[in-house]
Amino acid sequence: MHFLITGAAGFIGQLVAQTILNEEQYTVLLTDVIDPPIPEGVKYPQNAKILRADLCSAAESVVEKNLDAVYIFHGIMSSGSEENFELGMRVNVEATRSLLETLRKICPGVRVIYASSQAVYGRPVPDIVDESIRPTPESSYGAEKLICETLVNDYTRRGFIDGFSLRFPTVSIRPGKPTAAASSFLSGMIREPLKGQESVIPLQDRSFTSWVCSPRTLAGNLMHVLTVPSLSLPLHDRPINMPGTGVTIQEMIDALEKVGGKDKLKLIKEITDPAQEKILRSWANNFDNSKAYKMGFQQDPGFEQAVIDYKESLR
Amino acid sequence: MHFLITGAAGFIGQLVAQTILNEEQYTVLLTDVIDPPIPEGVKYPQNAKILRADLCSAAESVVEKNLDAVYIFHGIMSSGSEENFELGMRVNVEATRSLLETLRKICPGVRVIYASSQAVYGRPVPDIVDESIRPTPESSYGAEKLICETLVNDYTRRGFIDGFSLRFPTVSIRPGKPTAAASSFLSGMIREPLKGQESVIPLQDRSFTSWVCSPRTLAGNLMHVLTVPSLSLPLHDRPINMPGTGVTIQEMIDALEKVGGKDKLKLIKEITDPAQEKILRSWANNFDNSKAYKMGFQQDPGFEQAVIDYKESLR
Repeated sequence: MHFLITGAAGFIGQLVAQTILNEEQYTVLLTDVIDPPIPEGVKYPQNAKILRADLCSAAESVVEKNLDAVYIFHGIMSSGSEENFELGMRVNVEATRSLLETLRKICPGVRVIYASSQAVYGRPVPDIVDESIRPTPESSYGAEKLICETLVNDYTRRGFIDGFSLRFPTVSIRPGKPTAAASSFLSGMIREPLKGQESVIPLQDRSFTSWVCSPRTLAGNLMHVLTVPSLSLPLHDRPINMPGTGVTIQEMIDALEKVGGKDKLKLIKEITDPAQEKILRSWANNFDNSKAYKMGFQQDPGFEQAVIDYKESLR
Repeated sequence: MHFLITGAAGFIGQLVAQTILNEEQYTVLLTDVIDPPIPEGVKYPQNAKILRADLCSAAESVVEKNLDAVYIFHGIMSSGSEENFELGMRVNVEATRSLLETLRKICPGVRVIYASSQAVYGRPVPDIVDESIRPTPESSYGAEKLICETLVNDYTRRGFIDGFSLRFPTVSIRPGKPTAAASSFLSGMIREPLKGQESVIPLQDRSFTSWVCSPRTLAGNLMHVLTVPSLSLPLHDRPINMPGTGVTIQEMIDALEKVGGKDKLKLIKEITDPAQEKILRSWANNFDNSKAYKMGFQQDPGFEQAVIDYKESLR
């Protein structure tokens, strides 16, 4: 199979590229606005091609006729889309639409995996969220994701592509540095202490629950979607909430202690940031993922396993 | 107050222009891709300006600094958007987004009334539909309306405009000629017999129910929205289903007989068209409009009054 990954320099892009490049029969074109690296240590690095391209102006340069599936991962993240409205609309909506148009013309019917987000949900958030709940985004990022989901639905209904929109939970634990995202601490409160560095939790409520998914589970589900029959969903309704698990701050602290040792707890500070707390408390944190399970997507084994995975990755 | 109406040559555009141009204190810029007429018989025709413009390329030419409210009525209708995908996307999505961007820059915070449609709903359609139901459009027209609703929501949340998306029921009885729309017969089965012409109902089921609204009620509600406080709805959630009434084919036939006379019934043929019947049966036909009523929008008095109105308009 031959793949295209947009936003291939990003965390999820690299994660999927790594999985693909460990299978001999897979080839992939990695594209991004910077040169995307070929993930280190993969078995078949020669099966990757690298292409630096701006999808806003040059979607045609990245689409090859022999594509079997496309992962659309490029995008401006939530804080960036809120700060720079024009940039978010251009990259998150216009570049995606331009790519879908190009795919429709060059690879009609190709499987498209669009990375959407739980940010499509906004208030009122019900106690338990599933795909029947109406998305009412409260960020430009969420609105842009919802617009692209609507495009994927209509392009699929018309047979232009064979799309799925996967709404990702917060992915934790992510490697790398803290970001401006309100969710950044959900990785940082484990990652930084394991490195011997301080990390701040922006609210003082250990019962506060977040809906998260480990990188490993998400990567597995992103490969599984290649095998899902198109008619598993109605042709005009393609979003699926990817499985996650609800985890409290106390449970995350307990996992850090168990995997990293008690001394790491001293590196965690709980200091309320009212602005961040407001954003965090507006997010849905309890999902019914039975639709995904019926389609064979896997449940996340939970946060402690994610901490173990992350610790092992540091070796 | 000074208004802009896009798609001003269309039926709803002319209806609102007529209302506006009967009030001395109102002025309006009427724009369309053809020269929009000034409705005949209005009291203050001198208060209208006419501008032919293509919003796809020249949104800036139609937006004046002193606008108090904008009615966005331009668009390719449902059958046209299904037949010509590119044209529907360009006119229904891109021209609307270009207009919103221009409004944001030239008239920040302006009241925008966006004409959406019940076509945003698709299967599964629940027994009773209200604004909490998730839209799952099954036409490109419906998808394009949903995308623009999402834009209006986000532009309003950010304070760029003060928007409302009004989802119109099928407007009946419309003057003019039959169209290719599946709903065309809902006007034609009254309009044509009153003119002494034959009309075909494309299904044989007199209990079949449609959700319709008279032109007069819709026009009244389109003026009422000017007075609705912005905070009547959450800033990120601006669609409202405009009031309609459920009417069966039998009730429509009864209204024709009562208003037009028994001899008109001979001009109605019931001949099943399976393709049209399928579309018609996929539409929601029972709404809970209590959200609109709470905001002061008026209930439609029903189909018989619409027949009386139409008959009077022929004099």
